[in-house]
Amino acid sequence: MTARARRRSGRRAGDSGTSEAILDAARAQFAEHGYRGATIRAIAARAQVDPALVHHFYGTKEALFAAAMRIPVVPSQVLTAALQSGRAERGLGEHVVHAALTLWEGEGLVETFLGLLRSAVTSEDAARMLREFVAESILGTLTRVTGVAGSDAEVEYRAAMVATQMIGLAMTRLVLGLPAVAHASVAELSATIGPSVERYLTGDIAVPDRFAQISSR
Amino acid sequence: MTARARRRSGRRAGDSGTSEAILDAARAQFAEHGYRGATIRAIAARAQVDPALVHHFYGTKEALFAAAMRIPVVPSQVLTAALQSGRAERGLGEHVVHAALTLWEGEGLVETFLGLLRSAVTSEDAARMLREFVAESILGTLTRVTGVAGSDAEVEYRAAMVATQMIGLAMTRLVLGLPAVAHASVAELSATIGPSVERYLTGDIAVPDRFAQISSR
Repeated sequence: MTARARRRSGRRAGDSGTSEAILDAARAQFAEHGYRGATIRAIAARAQVDPALVHHFYGTKEALFAAAMRIPVVPSQVLTAALQSGRAERGLGEHVVHAALTLWEGEGLVETFLGLLRSAVTSEDAARMLREFVAESILGTLTRVTGVAGSDAEVEYRAAMVATQMIGLAMTRLVLGLPAVAHASVAELSATIGPSVERYLTGDIAVPDRFAQISSR
Repeated sequence: MTARARRRSGRRAGDSGTSEAILDAARAQFAEHGYRGATIRAIAARAQVDPALVHHFYGTKEALFAAAMRIPVVPSQVLTAALQSGRAERGLGEHVVHAALTLWEGEGLVETFLGLLRSAVTSEDAARMLREFVAESILGTLTRVTGVAGSDAEVEYRAAMVATQMIGLAMTRLVLGLPAVAHASVAELSATIGPSVERYLTGDIAVPDRFAQISSR
């Protein structure tokens, strides 16, 4: 907390309510403007605190989003770490599936995933927020760390195809609980599903031309 | 409606409330006992009508489930028809993805899918009901019509892997609305995702041994 933050905030930074007020403001801004459109500045204004105080408390927009959504980790950080460890032991696709499964089951993220999903299926605002967050934070990290090559449009399409597989894996394992998915081990699922993910990331797939326009929005 | 049905039912079959009472009873039985455990007989008893009347109104348990869940089609019937038409034009996996996308977007099933999903992410009873229904009706039809070979356990595992891909495709296209998935055409998605589905159905994948036990429950 800076002196300037304290002076301009209208709240004492030590108020027990300050961080909660910031999170409330963040939830409202993310819902109204999406993950992409929400800014630290606007969230600070809504919470009647200085933007520097928000940065001081939460660091980045992503970390603030995680705190506001009660995600107990900063997704891009843990995903980066998971993707970087044990890389040599498996093929790329198998490694990605293994990292994702290990991560979401190990960090107690199942309830968080269910909560985000509940919001997304009941509210268009929540779906938009989650969509933009998944695209920027999760898929952006995935393609950066794995070094997927191609135009922005191609990289976006490849990452989205990975999302079709991984979100379905999470749904069938965690929400539906299909026995053959729920009872399989992380290693078994990684071996079966890894090649699909690898093909989406690096294989010979036809990328629709017009995504060049979409991804430049 | 049979005379016996009318005599034993305690309601006149022509009552405008009779079919609604049957659907209410069905929803309650499916929620309490799952799709597998619910029986026409128990649903009829709960609605205080003769089982023959339920058969007369709805035909099969699946059709009754569809009516109770406000699914505007009988899933196994439309899926069978979709899988049987145009089969020669594409590879098996591409054909399955094409049939599914065409079906769920053409029959106005998007809202139905969202409704079932909303229930499944908020209620364990609803998740169980949907899990058993997907396993028996959707995946059962898929493996039967496409003629997937192998032990029961292997067929179950292969079908479940298809579910991990297709449910994720539905989620990212219909719920999240990831641009690269939502804006792609049915043909483009079928071409990209088809080979994954084909590999799950017929490819060289390792099926975990212990699913032999699970599938015989």
